Amino acid sequence: MDSSKKTEVVLLACGSFNPITNMHLRLFELAKDYMHATGKYSVIKGIISPVGDAYKKKGLIPAHHRIIMAELATKNSHWVEVDTWESLQKEWVETVKVLRYHQEKLATGSCSYPQSSPALEKPGRKRKWADQKQDSSPQKPQEPKPTGVPKVKLLCGADLLESFSVPNLWKMEDITQIVANFGLICITRAGSDAQKFIYESDVLWRHQSNIHLVNEWITNDISSTKIRRALRRGQSIRYLVPDLVQEYIEKHELYNTESEGRNAGVTLAPLQRNAAEAKHNHSTL
Amino acid sequence: MDSSKKTEVVLLACGSFNPITNMHLRLFELAKDYMHATGKYSVIKGIISPVGDAYKKKGLIPAHHRIIMAELATKNSHWVEVDTWESLQKEWVETVKVLRYHQEKLATGSCSYPQSSPALEKPGRKRKWADQKQDSSPQKPQEPKPTGVPKVKLLCGADLLESFSVPNLWKMEDITQIVANFGLICITRAGSDAQKFIYESDVLWRHQSNIHLVNEWITNDISSTKIRRALRRGQSIRYLVPDLVQEYIEKHELYNTESEGRNAGVTLAPLQRNAAEAKHNHSTL
Amino acid sequence: MDSSKKTEVVLLACGSFNPITNMHLRLFELAKDYMHATGKYSVIKGIISPVGDAYKKKGLIPAHHRIIMAELATKNSHWVEVDTWESLQKEWVETVKVLRYHQEKLATGSCSYPQSSPALEKPGRKRKWADQKQDSSPQKPQEPKPTGVPKVKLLCGADLLESFSVPNLWKMEDITQIVANFGLICITRAGSDAQKFIYESDVLWRHQSNIHLVNEWITNDISSTKIRRALRRGQSIRYLVPDLVQEYIEKHELYNTESEGRNAGVTLAPLQRNAAEAKHNHSTL
Amino acid sequence: MDSSKKTEVVLLACGSFNPITNMHLRLFELAKDYMHATGKYSVIKGIISPVGDAYKKKGLIPAHHRIIMAELATKNSHWVEVDTWESLQKEWVETVKVLRYHQEKLATGSCSYPQSSPALEKPGRKRKWADQKQDSSPQKPQEPKPTGVPKVKLLCGADLLESFSVPNLWKMEDITQIVANFGLICITRAGSDAQKFIYESDVLWRHQSNIHLVNEWITNDISSTKIRRALRRGQSIRYLVPDLVQEYIEKHELYNTESEGRNAGVTLAPLQRNAAEAKHNHSTL
Amino acid sequence: MDSSKKTEVVLLACGSFNPITNMHLRLFELAKDYMHATGKYSVIKGIISPVGDAYKKKGLIPAHHRIIMAELATKNSHWVEVDTWESLQKEWVETVKVLRYHQEKLATGSCSYPQSSPALEKPGRKRKWADQKQDSSPQKPQEPKPTGVPKVKLLCGADLLESFSVPNLWKMEDITQIVANFGLICITRAGSDAQKFIYESDVLWRHQSNIHLVNEWITNDISSTKIRRALRRGQSIRYLVPDLVQEYIEKHELYNTESEGRNAGVTLAPLQRNAAEAKHNHSTL
Amino acid sequence: MDSSKKTEVVLLACGSFNPITNMHLRLFELAKDYMHATGKYSVIKGIISPVGDAYKKKGLIPAHHRIIMAELATKNSHWVEVDTWESLQKEWVETVKVLRYHQEKLATGSCSYPQSSPALEKPGRKRKWADQKQDSSPQKPQEPKPTGVPKVKLLCGADLLESFSVPNLWKMEDITQIVANFGLICITRAGSDAQKFIYESDVLWRHQSNIHLVNEWITNDISSTKIRRALRRGQSIRYLVPDLVQEYIEKHELYNTESEGRNAGVTLAPLQRNAAEAKHNHSTL
Repeated sequence: MDSSKKTEVVLLACGSFNPITNMHLRLFELAKDYMHATGKYSVIKGIISPVGDAYKKKGLIPAHHRIIMAELATKNSHWVEVDTWESLQKEWVETVKVLRYHQEKLATGSCSYPQSSPALEKPGRKRKWADQKQDSSPQKPQEPKPTGVPKVKLLCGADLLESFSVPNLWKMEDITQIVANFGLICITRAGSDAQKFIYESDVLWRHQSNIHLVNEWITNDISSTKIRRALRRGQSIRYLVPDLVQEYIEKHELYNTESEGRNAGVTLAPLQRNAAEAKHNHSTL
Repeated sequence: MDSSKKTEVVLLACGSFNPITNMHLRLFELAKDYMHATGKYSVIKGIISPVGDAYKKKGLIPAHHRIIMAELATKNSHWVEVDTWESLQKEWVETVKVLRYHQEKLATGSCSYPQSSPALEKPGRKRKWADQKQDSSPQKPQEPKPTGVPKVKLLCGADLLESFSVPNLWKMEDITQIVANFGLICITRAGSDAQKFIYESDVLWRHQSNIHLVNEWITNDISSTKIRRALRRGQSIRYLVPDLVQEYIEKHELYNTESEGRNAGVTLAPLQRNAAEAKHNHSTL
Repeated sequence: MDSSKKTEVVLLACGSFNPITNMHLRLFELAKDYMHATGKYSVIKGIISPVGDAYKKKGLIPAHHRIIMAELATKNSHWVEVDTWESLQKEWVETVKVLRYHQEKLATGSCSYPQSSPALEKPGRKRKWADQKQDSSPQKPQEPKPTGVPKVKLLCGADLLESFSVPNLWKMEDITQIVANFGLICITRAGSDAQKFIYESDVLWRHQSNIHLVNEWITNDISSTKIRRALRRGQSIRYLVPDLVQEYIEKHELYNTESEGRNAGVTLAPLQRNAAEAKHNHSTL
Repeated sequence: MDSSKKTEVVLLACGSFNPITNMHLRLFELAKDYMHATGKYSVIKGIISPVGDAYKKKGLIPAHHRIIMAELATKNSHWVEVDTWESLQKEWVETVKVLRYHQEKLATGSCSYPQSSPALEKPGRKRKWADQKQDSSPQKPQEPKPTGVPKVKLLCGADLLESFSVPNLWKMEDITQIVANFGLICITRAGSDAQKFIYESDVLWRHQSNIHLVNEWITNDISSTKIRRALRRGQSIRYLVPDLVQEYIEKHELYNTESEGRNAGVTLAPLQRNAAEAKHNHSTL
Repeated sequence: MDSSKKTEVVLLACGSFNPITNMHLRLFELAKDYMHATGKYSVIKGIISPVGDAYKKKGLIPAHHRIIMAELATKNSHWVEVDTWESLQKEWVETVKVLRYHQEKLATGSCSYPQSSPALEKPGRKRKWADQKQDSSPQKPQEPKPTGVPKVKLLCGADLLESFSVPNLWKMEDITQIVANFGLICITRAGSDAQKFIYESDVLWRHQSNIHLVNEWITNDISSTKIRRALRRGQSIRYLVPDLVQEYIEKHELYNTESEGRNAGVTLAPLQRNAAEAKHNHSTL
Repeated sequence: MDSSKKTEVVLLACGSFNPITNMHLRLFELAKDYMHATGKYSVIKGIISPVGDAYKKKGLIPAHHRIIMAELATKNSHWVEVDTWESLQKEWVETVKVLRYHQEKLATGSCSYPQSSPALEKPGRKRKWADQKQDSSPQKPQEPKPTGVPKVKLLCGADLLESFSVPNLWKMEDITQIVANFGLICITRAGSDAQKFIYESDVLWRHQSNIHLVNEWITNDISSTKIRRALRRGQSIRYLVPDLVQEYIEKHELYNTESEGRNAGVTLAPLQRNAAEAKHNHSTL
C-alpha cells in the first residue's frame, strides 16, 4: 500500500513516568514496528505526556522533574518527544481529554504547543517535532495537511487496559470514546489476559478493530515502582533507564523514603472525581 | 567490616555476547550490588570475555565484531571492561581455563593483558582498569598487592547453572573446580529452579557457600537470540542494547538469515570434546 | 467494504474425522464468523476432506464409513460439505496437494467434483455447492467468476500448527507453500502457544498476515480419540457428535478394542515418506 | 447385582437454562453412565427444572421461553424431560424444596404432574415419563412401586458445589438436607477442586457417600453466559446447542443487549431471602 | 454392613524401603481408614515386603539392614508387620508373584511364614501376626478360615501407578493380573494425575472398581532419596523417620556417598528382564 | 570459625500448637542444621512457647493440654523444651514481648523459669537446659556468660512472615523490632513467595541479613487444622504427631466438633487490640 493511502498515526502515551524507563521507550518502538507491519499505518510521531501533580499518586514527584527526565530520555530519538500541556493543568485531566487536545491540535494543523514548561526553557534545548513550527510569536492555525489529519492513538500496556474494570477509575463514556474515536495500541506480554479482557467486555469487543494488541516477546518488565525501590535501597538502576536519566536522578537525589511517602493516604484524583458520578451511571463494561 | 578485611572480587562473564545486550550489563550491576550488600566483598572489576569462533555455536558471528560491540557497550562503564584473550585462542577454551587465566594474571599482579586484539588497537580507545596500569611505562610484574590477590568469580545467569546437567556439555571436574576454587554469582529470576538445582546436586551443595544466587526482581529477559530474530525481521532493538551497539550493528548489517545459518549442523565444541571422555568418567553430579 | 471487493474464501479442513465431532463442525462456524468480522473476506463454502486409509493412523477405520458420517453430520449445513477426492487416492496425499487440487478446481471454475464416492450415490441425497454443477457428463470449465477465483484456506486447530515442528511429519517446502500460497485459519484455545509458535519460526512469521489465529472462547475439546475411548467403554457420546452420526456408529458398531488396534505398530505415512528426504534438507523452520 | 436390588434414581437438574446447551444435556448422559457403572443404581429418568422468573438473575429471559427451549432440546431424548412446576411458582423456590416436591411425587406414585405450563399445551407434544401415566383419564395416586420409591438426586456441575461457600447463597440446613436426604451427582472437570471442597467441609465430608463426583474428561465448557454473549455479537452458536433450540432463539430474537440488562442491579432472590437469616445461624460449613 | 459380610483385606506394600519413612507408615494408616470408611472392607493386617538386593537399584543398601529398620519402625504397630520372603529370594521377584505368594499363604491358612531373617532372631522381639503360628517345623496348611480368605491388595503411591507406563518396567500381563486379581490402593496427592492415568488406559479403566484412589490431604512427601541425601550432608532426619530407625542408621552409619554409589551404572533388574520380552508383546496399556 | 567466636542462638517458636505436630519439631531441626551450616552460629536451645487461651483462636483448646502435649513431644529431645510463661499470662502477649522476655532471661543469666506448669511437676521428668539452673529459691541474677549473651531468634514458617501484611494483625513497630533486634528464621517451601515478600517490604529488606530463609525440601505440610479435622472424622493421625501425643489426645478425647466450635465468632485478640491503633499509624510495610 503506497504511503499516501496509509493512515498517519501519532502515538500518545499518558502516565506518571515516575521515572521514565527503557520499557516506556520500548513501547513506542514496538508499537511503531507493529503499525508499520500492518501496511495500513504510518507512525509519524510519538508523544510522552506526563500526568500533572494533581493526580495525587503515592510517591509522585513534581512534574517538572518528570518532564526533564522524559526530555533527557528522548534526546536522541528522532520521532518521540515530550509534551507538557497535561502536566501544566492545575486539575487532573482525564485521558480522553488529553487525546482530544492532541487530536484537535493536529486537526487545526496548529503546532502552537505551549507545552514547553517554563523550567524547561533552557537555551539550546533541541525540541523535536514541535520545534520546527515554534517561533517566539503565538502560532496562527496552519492549513490542515492535504493528506488527511493524522490520527492520535493511545499507546499503553496491558495493565491500563485491565484497569478499565477497576471501579470508579474510569468513566464508562470515556472508555467508549477512547476505543471508538481514538483507538488503543496495547503492548502485552505473552499469555497476558488482554485478549480475554476484550472478549468479556461488550464495549471493547465492539471496537476491537480499534484495539491493537502487540505481543512483546522480550520480557522487559521495568516498572517505575521497582526503579524507585532500587534507588531507595542504594542499588544500581543502570541499563534500566537511559544514562542521562540515571545521572539526573543521582544529581537531584530524586527518589528516597521521604519522596515515596508523598500523597500517602490521599485518594487518587480519578477515584475521587468518579466516586460521586459512579452511583448514577454505575454500569459495568 | 572495614574495606581492608573485605575480599576483593573480579567478576568474569563468559559467553557468546552475540550481541551483548542491556541484560548482560545488568548482570554486572546486580552482582556488584549483591556482593557489596553482604559486607564481605569489594568488587573491583568486571570482565566480559566473549567466546572464540571455535565454539561453533549456530549463528555465532566473528569474534572481532562481538569484541567491538562489547567495547562500545562498556565505553561509559568505569569498572566493566572487555578481555580478548579467550577469543584469540585457536581452540575453544573451557570456562575453568579462562577463570584460571585471569586468576593467574591477578596473582602475578601482571597487568600485561595482551588482550587488546589487533583490530581493536584504534587510537584513542580508552581501556578501563588495565589502562591505568598500562600507560606511563611498560609494566614489569608488580609485587602482589599486600591485601591478598583479588578473587575471580564467574558471573552467570541461571541457565548456565542448569546447563551443568546437560550431558557432555561440562566435565565433572571442571564444574567441581569452578565452584570449589572460584565460585559462581548466579543471577536468577524469582521462582527459578536454581535453588532446587543446587539442592539436588551433592557437588554444588558441598560448595553452596561459594554459589551466590542473586534474585533479579526486574524481569529483563533480553536474550541475544531474540535480538537477532528482531533484526532479521527488520524490527527495532532500540533500548534493548546500548545505542552505540545498535548503530554498529546497523552500520555493519551484522545479523540476517544468512548469519543465523553459520555453524548450522555443526556440533558445539564442548559436546564434541567431552563426548569421548563421557564414557569413562560419566558420573552424574 | 462492499461484498464485490471482498475476497471469496473456501475453508478446507483435512484430517482423520475418525469420527467427525461437534468440535470439527464448530471450527467452520468460528472461522466463518472471524473471516466475516474482518470485513475483508466472504466465506462461500466449507469442505471436509477425510484422509485416505493409506494414512495408516492407529485406529483409523475405513474411509467410506468416515465419509458417510461426515455427510450425515453436514446434512443440515447449507455451506459445509464433504469431499471424497483425497480419500479415494491409493497413496496418502500431502495436505498441500489437497489444497492445490481444490484451488485448481476453483480456478478452472470446473465444478466436476468426481468426489462423491460410489457408496454415497444414494438417490435423494442433497449435495451442497457441488450438486448444482454436478451432472453425469464431465463438466466443461465454466467462465471463471468475474470477481476473481475464491481462495482456498486451510482450516485447522492449534495442534496442526504445532505439529509443524514434529521431525519428519512435514516437508519444509510444503509448510512454506501452505502459509505463502494458501493461508491458515487456526482455531486456538485461550492462552495456547500458537502465537509463540509463529513468533519463534521465521517462515511462519514472514507469512503471519496469512495465518489467522481465531480464539475459541467456549472450550469444546471433543477429540475423536476420547469419543472412540468412550464408545469402547460403552459410554454415551450423545451431544458430542450429531445424533445421525451417533446412530450410524451404533448401527455399524464402528469403534471397539479391535478397531482401535488397526495400524498398530505401522509407521504413519508422512513419517515414512519424509524420513528419507529428512537427511538432505533437514532444516528446521 | 440384578436390577431388582438396584436403587432406582431420578436425576433432577435445577438452573436458569438461559438457554439450555449441549453441556447441560451431557451432564445427564455422564451421570447416567457413571451411576450405571457403579452397578448399584438404575437411572430411570432425568428432569430439567428451569428456575422461575422470581429468581431475578441478570439477563434471565421469561420462563416460558426457557421451558420451550428445554422441551425442544429433549424432544429426541427417551429419558430426559422438562418439568415446569418450579417455574410456575410466584416466589423463588429453594432447591431443597424442588427436590422434596419431586421426591413426594415419586413417593405417592402420583403422576399428576400439573407441570405442563399452559403455554406448552400444544397438541401433539410428546411428554416423556409422565405421559405414559397421564393417559386420557386423570390419574388417581398409584400404589407405590413394589421395588421401593426411586430416589431423586440433584445433578449439578462443580460450580454449584463450590457455590455452597458463597455467603448467604445457601442456608446451612438446606445444604445438609440436600446431601443427607437426597444426594449430589456432581460433574467436575479434571483437576477441579471439588474433592478439596468436600474434604474441607465437615458437613459434605460426613455425607460424602451421597456425593458422587463424576469426572468429565471431554472438556465441554459451553456456558449459557458465553452463548448469550455470542448471540449479542451476531456469532454462530451452531453445534453448541441443539439445532431446534438455535432456530427457536433466532426466530424469537431472544438474546440481545437489552435482554442481558434484565434484572440489572436487582439482588438475586436467595441472597435477599437469606441475608436476614444469615446473622443468626451464620455458620460456615 | 455387619462385619461378617465385609471382605477381609491384607495390605501389601512392596518397595526398597531404603530407608523406611513416616510416609510409608502413613500409607498404611490412610489406606485402612479409607477401606473401613467404604463400609465394605475390614483391613486385618499390613505387610511391608522390602525388595531383595537383586533389584540392583542405585544406592540400595543390603536387605538385612532394610528389614531391621522396617521391623524397628513397626515395633509399636499392632497391625503392620514386615515380611522377609521377597528379600530372601536370590533373584528379583515380580510384584505380582509377591502378591500371589501372600494370597496363597492366606488361602492355605498356613501361617508358616519362614520370613524372619536369621539376623532378626533376637530374643524378646515381639513378632506380630506371624509369631503366634511360627515354630521351627515346616507348617502343614491349616483349615481355611470360615469367613472366606482375606484378599491381598497392593498398597502404593501414585508414582507406582504412573510407573506402569515406563517402557519395559512392567509386563503387560502382570499389570492386568495385579488390577484384575488383587487390586490397588493408591495414595495420591490432591490434583495428581492418577485419575487421568486410569482414564487413559483401557486396562486400568476396565478394572477401576479394583483401583482405590485415596487422597492424602496432608502433604507428607518424605522420599527415601531425600532422607539419604540429608544423611550424606550431615543433616537431621529426626521426625521424618521413627526415632528407632534414626538411631539405627546413626549407629551403623548406613548412608553416605559411598553407599549411594552402589549399583551405579547397573541396569535395574525389571528393565533387564523385560527388555527382551518387550519386543514380542510390546503392547501399550 | 572456632566455636568461641560463634554467636550462640536460642530458637523461640510461638504459636497455638493445637496440637503440636512432627512438622513443628522439624522446623527446629531444619533451623539448627541451617544455622550451624553458616559456620557463624551455635544453636544452644529451642523453646516452644504455646500461646495463651486469651488468644481466642477458633478451636483453641485449653493451654494446659497444649503444654502437656508439647512436653510429651519433646520428651526425647536433648535441646528443645517447652516454656509456659506466655501461656500463663491472663492477657494475650505480643510475640515481640515474648521474645524480649526470653532475651532478658538470658541476659540476666537467671534461669528462674517459673514456666513449668503445676500439672507438669512430675517427679523424674528431665527438664532440658533450664533444669540444671532450677531450684526452688527465687534466682538472683547470675554473672552473664563470658562469651556474650545468646541471641533469641524467632523460628517460624513462611505463613507467619506473610501474615505481616494482614491488616491489624501486627503492629508496625513490633515487626520492625522483631526483625531489627531479634531476627527471623523462616522455614519456607520451595518456590514460596517469602523472598518476594521480603523484597517488596522496605522494613524487611533493610533487615534482610537478620531474616534467614531456610528451604524445606521435604514437603511435610502437617497443619494442626488438618490434624484436628482428621480426629473429628475418626481418622488416624499416627506418624503425623509423636506417638505419646497421639495417645494423650485419644485418652483425653481432645478434638471433636464441639472443641472446634470454641471461640467461634470471637475476634482474634491481636485484631481486637490493634484495630483501634490501626487508624493512627496505619502504615504499610
